[in-house]
Amino acid sequence: MHIGLIGLGKMGFNMRARLREAGIEVTGFDRNPEVTDVSSIDDLVAALPAPRIVWVMVPSGAITDSVVDELSAKLAAGDLLIDGGNSRFTEDQKHTAQLAEKSIKFLDCGVSGGVWGLQNGYGLMTGGSDEDIEAAMPIFDALRPEGDRADSFVHVGGVGAGHYAKMVHNGIEYGLMQSYAEGYELLAAKDIVKDLPGTFRAWQKGTVVRSWLLDLMVKALEEDPGLAAIDDYVEDSGEGRWTVEEAIASSVPVPAITAALYARFSSREDNSPAMRMVSALRNQFGGHATKPAK
Amino acid sequence: MHIGLIGLGKMGFNMRARLREAGIEVTGFDRNPEVTDVSSIDDLVAALPAPRIVWVMVPSGAITDSVVDELSAKLAAGDLLIDGGNSRFTEDQKHTAQLAEKSIKFLDCGVSGGVWGLQNGYGLMTGGSDEDIEAAMPIFDALRPEGDRADSFVHVGGVGAGHYAKMVHNGIEYGLMQSYAEGYELLAAKDIVKDLPGTFRAWQKGTVVRSWLLDLMVKALEEDPGLAAIDDYVEDSGEGRWTVEEAIASSVPVPAITAALYARFSSREDNSPAMRMVSALRNQFGGHATKPAK
Amino acid sequence: MHIGLIGLGKMGFNMRARLREAGIEVTGFDRNPEVTDVSSIDDLVAALPAPRIVWVMVPSGAITDSVVDELSAKLAAGDLLIDGGNSRFTEDQKHTAQLAEKSIKFLDCGVSGGVWGLQNGYGLMTGGSDEDIEAAMPIFDALRPEGDRADSFVHVGGVGAGHYAKMVHNGIEYGLMQSYAEGYELLAAKDIVKDLPGTFRAWQKGTVVRSWLLDLMVKALEEDPGLAAIDDYVEDSGEGRWTVEEAIASSVPVPAITAALYARFSSREDNSPAMRMVSALRNQFGGHATKPAK
Amino acid sequence: MHIGLIGLGKMGFNMRARLREAGIEVTGFDRNPEVTDVSSIDDLVAALPAPRIVWVMVPSGAITDSVVDELSAKLAAGDLLIDGGNSRFTEDQKHTAQLAEKSIKFLDCGVSGGVWGLQNGYGLMTGGSDEDIEAAMPIFDALRPEGDRADSFVHVGGVGAGHYAKMVHNGIEYGLMQSYAEGYELLAAKDIVKDLPGTFRAWQKGTVVRSWLLDLMVKALEEDPGLAAIDDYVEDSGEGRWTVEEAIASSVPVPAITAALYARFSSREDNSPAMRMVSALRNQFGGHATKPAK
Repeated sequence: MHIGLIGLGKMGFNMRARLREAGIEVTGFDRNPEVTDVSSIDDLVAALPAPRIVWVMVPSGAITDSVVDELSAKLAAGDLLIDGGNSRFTEDQKHTAQLAEKSIKFLDCGVSGGVWGLQNGYGLMTGGSDEDIEAAMPIFDALRPEGDRADSFVHVGGVGAGHYAKMVHNGIEYGLMQSYAEGYELLAAKDIVKDLPGTFRAWQKGTVVRSWLLDLMVKALEEDPGLAAIDDYVEDSGEGRWTVEEAIASSVPVPAITAALYARFSSREDNSPAMRMVSALRNQFGGHATKPAK
Repeated sequence: MHIGLIGLGKMGFNMRARLREAGIEVTGFDRNPEVTDVSSIDDLVAALPAPRIVWVMVPSGAITDSVVDELSAKLAAGDLLIDGGNSRFTEDQKHTAQLAEKSIKFLDCGVSGGVWGLQNGYGLMTGGSDEDIEAAMPIFDALRPEGDRADSFVHVGGVGAGHYAKMVHNGIEYGLMQSYAEGYELLAAKDIVKDLPGTFRAWQKGTVVRSWLLDLMVKALEEDPGLAAIDDYVEDSGEGRWTVEEAIASSVPVPAITAALYARFSSREDNSPAMRMVSALRNQFGGHATKPAK
Repeated sequence: MHIGLIGLGKMGFNMRARLREAGIEVTGFDRNPEVTDVSSIDDLVAALPAPRIVWVMVPSGAITDSVVDELSAKLAAGDLLIDGGNSRFTEDQKHTAQLAEKSIKFLDCGVSGGVWGLQNGYGLMTGGSDEDIEAAMPIFDALRPEGDRADSFVHVGGVGAGHYAKMVHNGIEYGLMQSYAEGYELLAAKDIVKDLPGTFRAWQKGTVVRSWLLDLMVKALEEDPGLAAIDDYVEDSGEGRWTVEEAIASSVPVPAITAALYARFSSREDNSPAMRMVSALRNQFGGHATKPAK
Repeated sequence: MHIGLIGLGKMGFNMRARLREAGIEVTGFDRNPEVTDVSSIDDLVAALPAPRIVWVMVPSGAITDSVVDELSAKLAAGDLLIDGGNSRFTEDQKHTAQLAEKSIKFLDCGVSGGVWGLQNGYGLMTGGSDEDIEAAMPIFDALRPEGDRADSFVHVGGVGAGHYAKMVHNGIEYGLMQSYAEGYELLAAKDIVKDLPGTFRAWQKGTVVRSWLLDLMVKALEEDPGLAAIDDYVEDSGEGRWTVEEAIASSVPVPAITAALYARFSSREDNSPAMRMVSALRNQFGGHATKPAK
């Protein structure tokens, strides 16, 4: 099998390597000349045998849109485009319709595993037709960990279902990370706790809270036991927001995931207008002193 | 009527003035020589006609305990001690039992109204026996606003019930302030909003959200339209914590009040350990850059 | 002044009455023949002097869209359409552009006050050009409570700003109601509280938490002291959802408002899938018994 | 080594088996005659070589107190009592002091692993003196999984530190379970998701959210794919409450863990007073219909 892979960043770069290790021929394209195999998408399309399979692994939104635009012009009827990036699932119907005008096929695949996927394999959640999923199965089998396929690969449903499942996966991830982090702070706040990194380490085997994220916390604490080098400013990449928006659309209460999202928002505020107002109000009714602005 | 009043801070000082305006004679004691009427609690006790009524208006916890200790030694059988401070309701049974050994009576009174109580009158929530409440009614009538007694005074139940109601009142207050403050930040974040102070001002009459706290927000925004002089650091005084603890004890979900409490905790953190851990984890699994510590 | 008013439901019906009391001539249209003044929008348009002012007070979304569609066909250049309903502010730009093609003017006005607006007057938040706002000022002055205009009317900003402010107002309203309701449940849960309705009643004057919503709680408790006739199922009408969605779009943490929204979602769930999963998990790891499905 | 083990319930029964498999002699006592080795604590004490080690594995609170009371009377100077149950860490100082009067030693050990600990081994968090921990190390080594001791055992700090760490562990567990459960409900709510159990199964290898709890969810969904046999009523056992109370005591915001606790409270409410009040209020101001009580 010989496929195209567009986008060779932190994820795509490793995926190319893993695919090649599994014997799949990959022609990769990236704007970064240091990592790309070909100098243009035209060259990538030209290099592939028909019917072509092109895996798109670029940032969601405008960049994915522009790559889909370009491929809808350059691929041929019967070719298959796989969006493996973190696109919002609502984008998938749009891309499917756009590509269907040229009889180009589409499937979406949520990919989890981060920078560790190269060695561990990736968890894969796919959406599309049975036929298209089947056609791409050698790719999925190469990317996922060894062992039972059902433990790391799922055909969730029609187009969009893969990205929907990935969005929920990432929403859960927000909640898990926040939960561990709250526990971390509770341990850090208590002077009777003399071995905080050791406590996390001891949770790795046997306990109910053992997980891969926990293993990574242990690793982070080994590298910097007090996390002293790190600021408490946390970005979010969109999937957490979409999860909350979908929860609202479905009338599903998701307080833990939302708490995790808001904690990130708060972490980025130097001078919260809301809390200045609370301080102002306490002063107004109770005469409580406000702290002067820095 | 002639009563004693111990504690002449922001609340007690104004209450003495309001009581005197209503024709009640007040002998006040405070450690601050500039405001006190007498130089000791002994003098205060000596000045009062028997059976004495002494209103205690000092910070809750150790200071209230020490005043109750002293009064339990110096008051006589049949005297009445009123705890008008923000004591946790669980303290009231303890004080009642302690005073009952000397046949001294006790009632608790939650007092709301802040620094505006002098002119507006105070809202009063009382706990104790019918007989003791009745004995103190002239005091309550002097402190509360004019008009129907039931609009500003309530005998909630037995000893402790007044402070319990005041605790819940303050818990609600946390939630109300947080809700308004969140709305304030949403308005402040939106560039199509050209008149933020005017928007709050226009909510004062006619809208569903009109309230006294809203009037105070308008006042705060008149004094400092961008709240530029105020830091976003917000203290809490204990009642919010107790409310959440009581909610837990009663298995009652109180997510809005708790959100308000946690927002204050967060406002006081310069460098949240929890959020540093989330940042560290994102780096571990996804290679996302952390922001270096300041 | 003579204006048209489309939509004579709970809000529009009362607004027509208040406008007429203030001496403004109103031709009202509603699909309900019992309340309408004219039998069609055509008749309404024909009845009005040019340049016409038509106030639209119908449910947001599809119905508002269809009324705007019809009016864009039937009004003339120079006429003014006012959307006084609870449209999402993002709709206003769309309607403005649509109407501008016919040189019809547009302004948005958030209206608060509920069924009490007839007697109390309404709080008004407007968005649009100075000129259009000025043209409609007699209407606003008739609708709002007497007294200083700035206490019940605001020109928030350009088109959409009025509805944005109304959305935030309603988001705050969610948080306020939830906060009071949590306090209500805390009082209801405590057996030392012997007079729950009386406690709310006594908060009306003097306390920090006094508000119009509190007055309405007192009224509700007078009518049904234990709220025994009411189920705990609470609808939401969209504004709370939009507030949270806007908060996410602006990266503003709004935990109290969101808690209020989620409490409503939960109130409508008979059999939460999430909590069944938590129960299943507790059984899996700890052997804790699950409760069998009803 | 020969130790006593008091409490042979879901945890203790399995622990006795695991200890014996590892070659440690165990005399177990339980009030249930079907599982006990001896008929009284007296017999248990008599059976052990001095200095005795007695592991207490009974429900926290009153029952643990009464066992400690009895052992303080029956053990001898130099004996060691290990509290392996889920006692609140604040109890440990009390028990230490009580036992110290008889020169009986004490250490606390939080034990995680649930019913799976028998086969997988238990994660252990201990508090006490180096000397006492060292004396009990063969027991810890028998109970924990094979492999590096530091991956499943930690000496957190002095007396109480083990239970504190276990409390935080369980608080985290609440947040993790809630996060997964919210994701489960989001998948269940979406009709494009055609294979919900398969999605969870596919998260087991490769994904960021993989964990032991996830494996248990997969198992639960295999046994009952729609969780149809389970009611959404979820108990809590105290550790989640204590975690939130400690967070308040330490001024640490823990919104995700608290959300998990409150979701359990809500799950047990048939007829929430708070939400009835919100419904009543909506009716009061907006004329919105309430749903009649069932």
